[in-house]
Amino acid sequence: MALLVVGSVAFDAVETPFGKCEKMLGGSASHFSISASYYTDVRVVGVVGGDFGDEEQRVFDSHRIDTTDLERIVDGKTFRWRGRYDYDLNVAHTLETQLNVFAGFEPKLSDRSKNSRLVFLGNIQPDLQRGVREQVPGAELVALDTMNLWIDTTRNSLQKTIEVVDLVIINDAEARQLSGEPNLIKAARKILSWGPSTLIVKRGEYGAAMFTKDGYFAIPAYPLEAVFDPTGAGDTFAGGLMGYLASQEKLDEAALRRAMIFGSVMASFNVEEFGTERVQRLTYEEINQRFRDFKRFTHFEEIPFEQRVSSSRFQVSS
Amino acid sequence: MALLVVGSVAFDAVETPFGKCEKMLGGSASHFSISASYYTDVRVVGVVGGDFGDEEQRVFDSHRIDTTDLERIVDGKTFRWRGRYDYDLNVAHTLETQLNVFAGFEPKLSDRSKNSRLVFLGNIQPDLQRGVREQVPGAELVALDTMNLWIDTTRNSLQKTIEVVDLVIINDAEARQLSGEPNLIKAARKILSWGPSTLIVKRGEYGAAMFTKDGYFAIPAYPLEAVFDPTGAGDTFAGGLMGYLASQEKLDEAALRRAMIFGSVMASFNVEEFGTERVQRLTYEEINQRFRDFKRFTHFEEIPFEQRVSSSRFQVSS
Repeated sequence: MALLVVGSVAFDAVETPFGKCEKMLGGSASHFSISASYYTDVRVVGVVGGDFGDEEQRVFDSHRIDTTDLERIVDGKTFRWRGRYDYDLNVAHTLETQLNVFAGFEPKLSDRSKNSRLVFLGNIQPDLQRGVREQVPGAELVALDTMNLWIDTTRNSLQKTIEVVDLVIINDAEARQLSGEPNLIKAARKILSWGPSTLIVKRGEYGAAMFTKDGYFAIPAYPLEAVFDPTGAGDTFAGGLMGYLASQEKLDEAALRRAMIFGSVMASFNVEEFGTERVQRLTYEEINQRFRDFKRFTHFEEIPFEQRVSSSRFQVSS
Repeated sequence: MALLVVGSVAFDAVETPFGKCEKMLGGSASHFSISASYYTDVRVVGVVGGDFGDEEQRVFDSHRIDTTDLERIVDGKTFRWRGRYDYDLNVAHTLETQLNVFAGFEPKLSDRSKNSRLVFLGNIQPDLQRGVREQVPGAELVALDTMNLWIDTTRNSLQKTIEVVDLVIINDAEARQLSGEPNLIKAARKILSWGPSTLIVKRGEYGAAMFTKDGYFAIPAYPLEAVFDPTGAGDTFAGGLMGYLASQEKLDEAALRRAMIFGSVMASFNVEEFGTERVQRLTYEEINQRFRDFKRFTHFEEIPFEQRVSSSRFQVSS
């Protein structure tokens, strides 16, 4: 009854103004599952090559992430991504992508995985996402991420996949591009009209917003003085969010709101170090401290304005 | 003991994808004072020409705005601005600026104005702002707005002015440019180090954030499906914020937080119609409704995560 994620497991090489790392564990499924593992049992569906070694396996094992459905192609190589960030850490410049074993990825779900209560369809080709979705008909909540590439190249398939999920988690540029609406509220309304009950929009340093048929919820980002490496922030956010939801009995609006806070907390840790390094060694005290911080910096008293009738008020002379 | 604003009173011509208006009341002092008038007594220091007629005067009078210090140069013309917005309503394209009587503006404060409790130094040349600030030594709180032009051309004078105010209200691009720090949290820390106790950063459709020496508060914007004309949104925000503060006895952090909400509420109305049209005819019920909406879409329950020890949890096999 746990949380299932399908997505990429990769080796990333990242250069930022603050440092450089030649090879580290990355990919949507890695960031997602490590983040979610703090809240629930996680199962990963993905594919890796013969270069995926004990060191990488230990990261998953030490977070009790089930890798039964992580396929190994011993004579192949793991997906590799190389990117660079300049001082504007909001924009990733892709220098190189080697799909390797990921090029022929066909997600295969064990019976155990098919019984997952919650499912996250990480950013992969939408036909593959829909194929996974069809294998988990009993899931209570299925969420999806995507990217501009799929909006550009496989729009019809992507829309068909969105029609059969409950929750879409994308960034604001993607929401605008997907809907063709520059206004985010209109964009959200359009995407929800296709079927999902909920849309969560990631806005990077500006926080996140959630749209439901009648509801709206928005939060700022956790304020950070030093952003070191933003790679994986979106998947770490989704992992905290879905992981927290999986820990809750009722998946109602109140739980979704708290889940967005926990997602933001996890993302705030993710960007402080390279790859998954910081999120790998979190404590519940650290997590809950930032959760409480969120309450502290978003709270205000609900005291409507009461007009005072003042005799000293300037009088209109004519 | 009221609220004083010094700034521009102008005639604006605005073109947006949704419509066009050849001549309407604009300028920072106009937007600010009409917005603030819902909360407190407002006095305007500014200058207009002979083309400023009964119709414009009536707008100020009907909101009980004191225009004693609004200088009239009968043989001169009022400041004029012409701008255009494309579908990205965040960017104003200036087509024409005629400073007219505003070119020789020297703010003159009556004794009454000098005794104002709160002062807003609208976006004018920083030497002029500092000159006004020196004439209100007893003010409880002095706030300042500025723009990229003054950061580019009069940085030293601007910094000297910032050193002698309590509150800086600018947008995020200005905060980064002013401080030379791409990270907003670092930018805020630097600006606060110059003297002000509080920095409020306007982020347009992403809301606003407040920084104090030890505090942080951030809110999203009011979600709007139709933004018609964003001209004056920043000054309308500042007007609601400062007006609300003027209505409060204690200018503490809690009051500042509520003031940011009221400022955002006023700005959300401002952008719905041309110029000051929508803000001119607000009711307290409309204002308080949106204030309550803000509470509704930012609230979450503060329930930290509690780890459940589950026997069904996946066990590491080695």
